[in-house]
Amino acid sequence: VQQEKAAPADLTGYERVKQELVRPPFAPKHDQVASGDPKIVEITMTVDERLMVVDEDSGASIWAMTYHGSVPGPLIIVHQDDYVELTLRSPSKNQLEHNIDFHASTGALGGGGLTHIYPGEETVLRWKATKAGLFTYHCAPGGAMIPYHVCHGMNGAVMVLPRDGLKDGDGNPLRYDEIAYIGEQDYYLPKNADGTYKTYANAGDDYADSLEAMRTLTPTHSVFNGAVGALTGSNALKSEVGKTVLMIHNQANRDTRPHLIGGHGDYVWESGSFTDAPQTGLETWFIRGGSAGAAIYTFKQPGVYAYVNHNLIEAALLGATAHFVVDGEWDNALMEQVVAPRTSET
Amino acid sequence: VQQEKAAPADLTGYERVKQELVRPPFAPKHDQVASGDPKIVEITMTVDERLMVVDEDSGASIWAMTYHGSVPGPLIIVHQDDYVELTLRSPSKNQLEHNIDFHASTGALGGGGLTHIYPGEETVLRWKATKAGLFTYHCAPGGAMIPYHVCHGMNGAVMVLPRDGLKDGDGNPLRYDEIAYIGEQDYYLPKNADGTYKTYANAGDDYADSLEAMRTLTPTHSVFNGAVGALTGSNALKSEVGKTVLMIHNQANRDTRPHLIGGHGDYVWESGSFTDAPQTGLETWFIRGGSAGAAIYTFKQPGVYAYVNHNLIEAALLGATAHFVVDGEWDNALMEQVVAPRTSET
Amino acid sequence: VQQEKAAPADLTGYERVKQELVRPPFAPKHDQVASGDPKIVEITMTVDERLMVVDEDSGASIWAMTYHGSVPGPLIIVHQDDYVELTLRSPSKNQLEHNIDFHASTGALGGGGLTHIYPGEETVLRWKATKAGLFTYHCAPGGAMIPYHVCHGMNGAVMVLPRDGLKDGDGNPLRYDEIAYIGEQDYYLPKNADGTYKTYANAGDDYADSLEAMRTLTPTHSVFNGAVGALTGSNALKSEVGKTVLMIHNQANRDTRPHLIGGHGDYVWESGSFTDAPQTGLETWFIRGGSAGAAIYTFKQPGVYAYVNHNLIEAALLGATAHFVVDGEWDNALMEQVVAPRTSET
Ligand SMILES: [Cu+2]
Ligand SMILES: [Cu+2]
Ligand SMILES: [Cu+2]
Ligand SMILES: [Cu+2]
Ligand SMILES: [Cu+2]
Ligand SMILES: [Cu+2]
Ligand SMILES: [Mg+2]
Ligand SMILES: [Mg+2]
Ligand SMILES: [Mg+2]
Ligand SMILES: [Mg+2]
Ligand SMILES: [Mg+2]
Ligand SMILES: [Mg+2]
Ligand SMILES: [Mg+2]
Ligand SMILES: [Mg+2]
Ligand SMILES: [Mg+2]
Repeated sequence: VQQEKAAPADLTGYERVKQELVRPPFAPKHDQVASGDPKIVEITMTVDERLMVVDEDSGASIWAMTYHGSVPGPLIIVHQDDYVELTLRSPSKNQLEHNIDFHASTGALGGGGLTHIYPGEETVLRWKATKAGLFTYHCAPGGAMIPYHVCHGMNGAVMVLPRDGLKDGDGNPLRYDEIAYIGEQDYYLPKNADGTYKTYANAGDDYADSLEAMRTLTPTHSVFNGAVGALTGSNALKSEVGKTVLMIHNQANRDTRPHLIGGHGDYVWESGSFTDAPQTGLETWFIRGGSAGAAIYTFKQPGVYAYVNHNLIEAALLGATAHFVVDGEWDNALMEQVVAPRTSET
Repeated sequence: VQQEKAAPADLTGYERVKQELVRPPFAPKHDQVASGDPKIVEITMTVDERLMVVDEDSGASIWAMTYHGSVPGPLIIVHQDDYVELTLRSPSKNQLEHNIDFHASTGALGGGGLTHIYPGEETVLRWKATKAGLFTYHCAPGGAMIPYHVCHGMNGAVMVLPRDGLKDGDGNPLRYDEIAYIGEQDYYLPKNADGTYKTYANAGDDYADSLEAMRTLTPTHSVFNGAVGALTGSNALKSEVGKTVLMIHNQANRDTRPHLIGGHGDYVWESGSFTDAPQTGLETWFIRGGSAGAAIYTFKQPGVYAYVNHNLIEAALLGATAHFVVDGEWDNALMEQVVAPRTSET
Repeated sequence: VQQEKAAPADLTGYERVKQELVRPPFAPKHDQVASGDPKIVEITMTVDERLMVVDEDSGASIWAMTYHGSVPGPLIIVHQDDYVELTLRSPSKNQLEHNIDFHASTGALGGGGLTHIYPGEETVLRWKATKAGLFTYHCAPGGAMIPYHVCHGMNGAVMVLPRDGLKDGDGNPLRYDEIAYIGEQDYYLPKNADGTYKTYANAGDDYADSLEAMRTLTPTHSVFNGAVGALTGSNALKSEVGKTVLMIHNQANRDTRPHLIGGHGDYVWESGSFTDAPQTGLETWFIRGGSAGAAIYTFKQPGVYAYVNHNLIEAALLGATAHFVVDGEWDNALMEQVVAPRTSET
């Protein structure tokens, strides 16, 4: 094939570093401004087909197909002009063929054409991060298997930072104190005639039923980080007044519209490109299906913030809600309850 | 709670003014450029649960939950750094708990956490308009009640003007002669087995049925200003050639794509932020579910302009159509019917 | 009517040229930079109601309503301040009333109010291209007939180039080597009780069934250039490494999110306006229902690129996939298969 005849890449002088992947909503250790020259960032991901509970209340479950055990797959962070060198493994306990398509990469269906592996196999792909921004990655084995795998959780995001870090529209540096990495997943779970969710013995067994459910284009669930409640209650995100959070939103298949209830997007890269000026002061932003974007916010008040897909049906009934619990001092100059609810004269 | 321990806001020197709310599609009296220092703008809104006809042809109706009697709720206009001081009342004739979440505000779930009132109660909330732009407000009593109330009409918009008014991307002033304030409402009306719409005796009685209908994510109606035909025929908007209209579009729940048939968006704040340069010369713009945006157009031809959600199924079958009737002189230099329809030789 | 009383347009000094329409995905002969003064561009389109196969596998078909025999209708290209002078004919073999609404034009419902023709009729409309950008045109006979005709394929795009051609955000010229003109069409095909697609004897016979199907807002098909597979296999688009393609995407009714698998949008006019700076480096872009937009990409690797609506269900199950087959030399510096799939030790 063409790749074999091509000149080998000249990697002289590139330092190699390893990036340890961490579970969402957390971000791997990284520098916001790159130090030194572009590097080769080595990453290892293991494909893990696993039965996951989607909603404890209804008992809805799915044989999820995951990168490295989580939905979404882990966040990868590099700087522009770095190489990502990925080792992708599929243990023999898995049932299905998988691969990986990096929206951030160039050629071969985003790498999808070079990484088809069966259970018990591994492959190594290296690609250069030429575009700065947030980019989805996902499995794309071909044909109807593409939405089937993606809608079973097999997707995540890469952040390619500009070497000198994020900037506002005037070129001033923007820095964050923490990252909240949120993957929204639309599931199309097959149901029994009585409305309960079907269960299956093995990954892949729900294929025909899933295709029928997907054709409705109407998800049964749209959840953050794999399951209803994965980022609420004891799993809520934490922050403090004065802290700046970068909220990364990945949606590999279906449009969504993140909103931080009680806050804003101070700076928003809606389509995820860091070579364009961020929008400012947004109430709600739009993530196109098949993309990742981000918003920066500095918390100004303590309390609970719900971060939702602002189709409120999807937020409240389908699962698309996370919580930030923010410590600090209330500022009555921004908002004050002048009169608490009381019986009205009129 | 935290609010009680916080230092009181220093309101020394703030002048208080009252804003009289008016029915949509009209805008309250306001200055496009602020005069003097930031003010405290006092507003009173009454929650009104009322049976409304959605479509006279089919007899579809809803126990709407409204701010001040209309769907959408009234447009509020202030300038950046002004305070909004809202008195929210719910008469005892109402059935349900309500509150208000202002996307324009900061903290406490947009004020939603501080304004829960039951029938017979009132509360007063004050918040500072720190961000310039168009912002949705809506009821958010918690859980499934959130989409239930929002999809029963309980939402509206605040416009926070820059103190020196609107500007194009080069900083030149943009002024309008009139405002058309349009709220698009997706309704999910429960049906009987024969396809007719169900009727209910009281507000809230349709709760279980509505939740089931909302889960389809497919509205039975998507209407402007509360009902099919609310802005057409004798209710059409009026304008003149040479006049500049600011078309404000609020959609608190579901994405939409306004289009002015026969005109354009000369300047468009699609995501509603006035701190970003408006887009120019658009055919169709996109309002994310859970946001308000606006477009400016100067009419150049007389006649009827349909203003639609350009999913034409939603425009023609679900109700998302308004009309502008524009007076003035036709300009053949822009468009001319060179040959009127006639029998063709070929 | 008003048009009759208006002063005639002064067309002194305007040269007349004819534009020969060509079948999508191809573009008519044109200059990227205008030579000389604005012109009157004469175009003739014939309305053609024709039975088309939508999907050979399932046998799904439609009595398409077409401009000039294709779905989408032909691409029209002019420069800003040119006139388009369209002769629209409907042969007597047709069944239905048609007209044309140009989003690029000003007044009379985009010309829709001046161009209603019945089978056996013709009309001539002239309008000035005052706005630079990509704009949808479509049939809009009134009421429910509007989505019915548009969802039967009766739409296309006009590109109004700036007189000095396309530019990046800094004002530098952007040129393309080729155009790929892609119209995405959502069809709502009525089905029999057994799930097979209904067939009809004449154009228009599916009206009542179609309206019912459209109300679901869930298309049975979303295809590029009229049918499943119209731009794949032997119909795939062709290009070369180093060539720059302008990908024009028209969707007259329903939102979509184009993505080039393995490539990017180097420059993207998402909402189609050429008076706004293009976005840069996008993975996925968003075309609002009822609009046309475009992206420029310079191919950097050989191979097959799938161009999809990145709702992957729509791409893989509903038909929204095209292919580019790109010749050239592979560049391992951008992507390299370091280790081909092999049995894993672990
Ligand atoms: Cu997979
Ligand atoms: Cu993809
Ligand atoms: Cu309420
Ligand atoms: Cu909200
Ligand atoms: Cu037609
Ligand atoms: Cu249109
Ligand atoms: Mg095995
Ligand atoms: Mg394959
Ligand atoms: Mg992105
Ligand atoms: Mg009562
Ligand atoms: Mg509550
Ligand atoms: Mg807004
Ligand atoms: Mg005939
Ligand atoms: Mg008519
Ligand atoms: Mg356009």
